[in-house]
This record gives sequence, C-alpha cells and structure tokens, in this order.
Amino acid sequence: MSKDQKSSDVVWHHATVTRERRQDQNNHKSVIMWFTGLSGAGKSTLAHCVEESLHKRGCRTFVLDGDNVRHGLCGDLGFSIQDRTENIRRIAEVAKLMMEAGVITLTAFISPFREEREKARQIFPHGEFLEIYCKCPLEICEQRDVKGLYKKARQGQIKDFTGISSPYEEPMNPELVVNTAELSLEDCAEQVMGLLVTRGVINPV
Amino acid sequence: MSKDQKSSDVVWHHATVTRERRQDQNNHKSVIMWFTGLSGAGKSTLAHCVEESLHKRGCRTFVLDGDNVRHGLCGDLGFSIQDRTENIRRIAEVAKLMMEAGVITLTAFISPFREEREKARQIFPHGEFLEIYCKCPLEICEQRDVKGLYKKARQGQIKDFTGISSPYEEPMNPELVVNTAELSLEDCAEQVMGLLVTRGVINPV
Repeated sequence: MSKDQKSSDVVWHHATVTRERRQDQNNHKSVIMWFTGLSGAGKSTLAHCVEESLHKRGCRTFVLDGDNVRHGLCGDLGFSIQDRTENIRRIAEVAKLMMEAGVITLTAFISPFREEREKARQIFPHGEFLEIYCKCPLEICEQRDVKGLYKKARQGQIKDFTGISSPYEEPMNPELVVNTAELSLEDCAEQVMGLLVTRGVINPV
Repeated sequence: MSKDQKSSDVVWHHATVTRERRQDQNNHKSVIMWFTGLSGAGKSTLAHCVEESLHKRGCRTFVLDGDNVRHGLCGDLGFSIQDRTENIRRIAEVAKLMMEAGVITLTAFISPFREEREKARQIFPHGEFLEIYCKCPLEICEQRDVKGLYKKARQGQIKDFTGISSPYEEPMNPELVVNTAELSLEDCAEQVMGLLVTRGVINPV
C-alpha cells in the first residue's frame, strides 16, 4: 500500500471472491428459502430439519429465525406494524448477504403479509427466492400452542396476534406448499429437498 | 409434523447444525476481523486481498463494507452520530451471524470511535474479535484521496469527516497494527494471515 503500490491498490480494491466462486467451492448454489406460515405451523422445525439434511450432504447453510435475530440485529424493534415491517426488511437484507457469501439461507418467520414477502422477494435475483408456505390449519396450531402464545392472544395479553387478532395472508404463488399438519416432518423435509434438486441448487443424491 | 410426530418436532426444533460442526466441515475456525482506520488507509483493499488468500486456501469468507451494507441493510441510515452508531451496531450483529455460519468475516469501516468498536467487540466470544488497525498518516490518506472525499471535506461539503472535522480515535490495544503506508499490500496481507495462524483460525501452510 506504499505509494509505488498504488496501481495494485486499484486492482485489489473490489471484491475478487464472488458469489460464483463461492458456489464453485461449495459445489452447490446459494438461495434463500423463505418459510412462511402461522405460529406453530412448523416453520422453524422444518427449516432446521432441512438444514440438517443439507449439512450432511456437505452444504453450507444458515437458519435465520427469532432465536438469532430478535435479540441481536433487530433487538431495537418492537411489534408495531412499522417495526415488524422493518424486522422483515432487515432479515431479507441479511439473507441476501448470506446468499452472496455462498450460503443456503433459510428464514423462518411468520411474515403474514403478502406485501412484505413481495418486498423481500424483490431484492433477490429472479428465481433465487423460494417462498415455502407451511400450511397448517389455525385450529391445529392453536391446539399445539407450543409456546403458549395462542392462549395469551385469546386472553388479549398479546395484541395483533397472527390468526387471532391480525390476518395471515396466504401466499398466492409460492414455490412450494408443505402441508405440515398432514405429513410427517421427514416427508415435509423431503419435499423441500426435492425443490432444491429441481431448482438445481443441489445435486440429486 | 402430524400429531403422532410431535415428539420428533420437539427434538428437531432447535438448531442441530452448530458453529462447531460448521467449523469442522470447513476445516478452519470462524472469527471476525474488524479493520479500522482512516478513509483511504486501505481497509477495504487489504480485507479483499486477505479474503482472496483465504479463499485460495479453501476457506469460507465474507467482506462487509460500505459497498454491500450502506444501500441494503443500512439503507435507512444517514450520517448523524446516532445513525453511524446504529450502522456499526448492525454490522457487528451481521458479522456475528456470519461467524455463527462458520464464515471468516472481515469488516472494513472507518469506525472511528473506541466506544463503538468496544461495543462491537463485546458481542463476540472472548478472543474471536480481531481488531486490525490500518495505520496510515492523514497526510498520505488525504494525498491519495481515491474517492475525492478529503477534498470535499476540506471544502466543507462533507460534515463530520473523520480526520478533518471529526476525530479518529486510535485503537488502544488492537490485535494487530498494519502500517499500510510503509508496507506493500502483499506484506500487509501476510501480517494478517500470520495473525490468523497464530490464533489458530487457519492452519499454517
């Protein structure tokens, strides 16, 4: 970086390690899988199960979910509509950086509104944002109530709770619909893996 | 995810692919290298040069810099002190997610204030945040003025410009000081690679 190295500086300034080179190194493509659905529909469970399968195949993966985003990157955000929108925006942007880094990125957030999911989709190259709808009837999600949130929502302790006091807008044209109420976890994961093969993200076994 | 699979759900809900497993897969550790220094000191150039070396060794890497953060994740932020602080906070949080994903993450931002760098450091496990000070006299940075920013700052067109109208607080105890004004780019990169070997992040060649 001494002055006689200046031309070297110019050459080196921009990134030489591109997404393409990372994909070659990894022997798989990087995409974003955007899991959406009601609380309790199994988004996070399914995402982690798919991640396990991918890791075993030697893929580079990461799951973004409430556990690793809500207290860190989005720790300053609450649950107002404005803050929820900003939450989804940041998640999409981080997922994009992860994708640039060559990582198959799985996001597991309710993301109930079509508009916010469309906005997320739009920052990705065409065909590289895979919307996966975890379809599960509200009754079943509420019956499971793993986190006890539905009960609180019914009692009015949580405002604007998706499915109870705030709408969930089903995807119009997602890349995949997984009926998490009807299929076993393994079958759900197999469907997602199948999508990745079909899309050329990973090679068939 | 059918009801008779419920126990399976519980087992699978949490992440099974840990940072440790990713590190084993990659055959290197994941750390954060936080490059700091004046505008024009060579942070981004050096970070990309180190990244190239790491990639050639088969490592998973990513550089966070103004190019991929300012218009995306931090596109809502301006240059007020409050916004600059939030900018650095988000970058540190994204770097942490990248590190969790097994990636050697390099950040290249002026990050002029000790307090903000300390805050960034504190969210990482001990010993996994490597502060790298790109030391270069203001006169040389200003003389280079690759982006023409110093000229604008001197003319008062940019407010609070580090080194001109806003202070740069040198690191008190960085993991590495690289004299970018005196050494060639290759020698600077070698110093950084040496640090990674010493710290056990990568294996010696």
